[in-house]
Amino acid sequence: MKILALDSSGLVAGVAVVQDDILQASYTIHHKKTHSQTLLPMLEEVCKMIELDMETIDAIAVAAGPGSFTGLRIGSATAKGLGLALNKPIVEIGTVEAIAYQLYGVEKVICPMLDARRNQVYTGLYTFETVEGKSVFKTLAGQCAVSVEEIIEKVNKMKKEVVFLGDGVPVYEEIISERTEVPYEFAPAFCNRQNAGALGSLACTYFKERRFVDPREHKPEYLRMSQAERERLEKEEKKQ
Amino acid sequence: MKILALDSSGLVAGVAVVQDDILQASYTIHHKKTHSQTLLPMLEEVCKMIELDMETIDAIAVAAGPGSFTGLRIGSATAKGLGLALNKPIVEIGTVEAIAYQLYGVEKVICPMLDARRNQVYTGLYTFETVEGKSVFKTLAGQCAVSVEEIIEKVNKMKKEVVFLGDGVPVYEEIISERTEVPYEFAPAFCNRQNAGALGSLACTYFKERRFVDPREHKPEYLRMSQAERERLEKEEKKQ
Repeated sequence: MKILALDSSGLVAGVAVVQDDILQASYTIHHKKTHSQTLLPMLEEVCKMIELDMETIDAIAVAAGPGSFTGLRIGSATAKGLGLALNKPIVEIGTVEAIAYQLYGVEKVICPMLDARRNQVYTGLYTFETVEGKSVFKTLAGQCAVSVEEIIEKVNKMKKEVVFLGDGVPVYEEIISERTEVPYEFAPAFCNRQNAGALGSLACTYFKERRFVDPREHKPEYLRMSQAERERLEKEEKKQ
Repeated sequence: MKILALDSSGLVAGVAVVQDDILQASYTIHHKKTHSQTLLPMLEEVCKMIELDMETIDAIAVAAGPGSFTGLRIGSATAKGLGLALNKPIVEIGTVEAIAYQLYGVEKVICPMLDARRNQVYTGLYTFETVEGKSVFKTLAGQCAVSVEEIIEKVNKMKKEVVFLGDGVPVYEEIISERTEVPYEFAPAFCNRQNAGALGSLACTYFKERRFVDPREHKPEYLRMSQAERERLEKEEKKQ
């Protein structure tokens, strides 16, 4: 089984190719450049380096949201285009879930926080439980857009140590330190943002469970309305 | 603090740039191509993508062994050359230690195994302990070259769950399954081989503790004699 994984849901642009137990390639860039300029050249570069015949992949995994609206559209459009051209299914992975998955085997509460602006974060709660020696990934609270205060309240109720990660951490560090009542830490640089390799690994388990969609059906999950939609709605409401 | 990290100790070629809490770039290729053909072009590609001015890095981290003799020499020569040219220190990180570090926060026994041929593995035992909420990386048994049987015996004595990873796992999977008496698992694709990002993150903690060397002093740690050296020695012994 070979999965091509794409993540452009945040500031990070990531491309990875996972074949069974091997990460054949992973390329991550966290830089201001727009993903429309970086994602496809990165994919091309990776294909060249590992001499990848795109026909040999089984599916395309994509960070399917939430995240940056433009970023998600670039990722989804790329995945959809490749999926249609190559006739391969899309494995849609929740952005927050994929970020949590990179703390593989960690039995604390894993709390990704992505800055969603307007004092909200895209977040969720995850952990790994050991069942007969194997780490099993578990969702404690599915991904959602809530205030930082609200998710920290949930974390406090868990009464367990927690690891925070994601681009919301530096933004809300003060609130986190003021409000978190359980012992907490921040994940280090190499595993605190989007990671296409982890996304691809998680997608392998999804693919085995036949959790994929036809590229025609794929669309990103924004979780919230875009600013433009919100403003239009507000205008319409005022008119009434 | 900005660290350039290089790993060519095994089949994986990896380049990463870590600045404080941000992985600015990470590029990993696990393909048969020789690292002498890949490592520098990968570095060049990464520099271009993140517009990296090499003068701004504080140190060069390198997977300093054990591992493939040729691979280590390529990594060390590259790090040394860059260090001398840029007048930057080298952070030498044990290959086995760096591989273990990518299971950040995992409180099981972490046992990397690199195939060292001749029925041996380069291995060691590590874990993370939580101290006041923070994951602290701990060496339970430093890196060494021993038989698979010997390291598994050590693992069994720990009486704790264990995660195996590294390129020795597929080679010695049968022995592992026969001999391991504690619950065990294998790390998934995205975190079961060399990872320059994790190396760079670990190097940040080394750098803060001023654990680095002048590029003139750096040399890789092979842990064992090369085949050529061994054969010469055997020949000389026969002569006597």
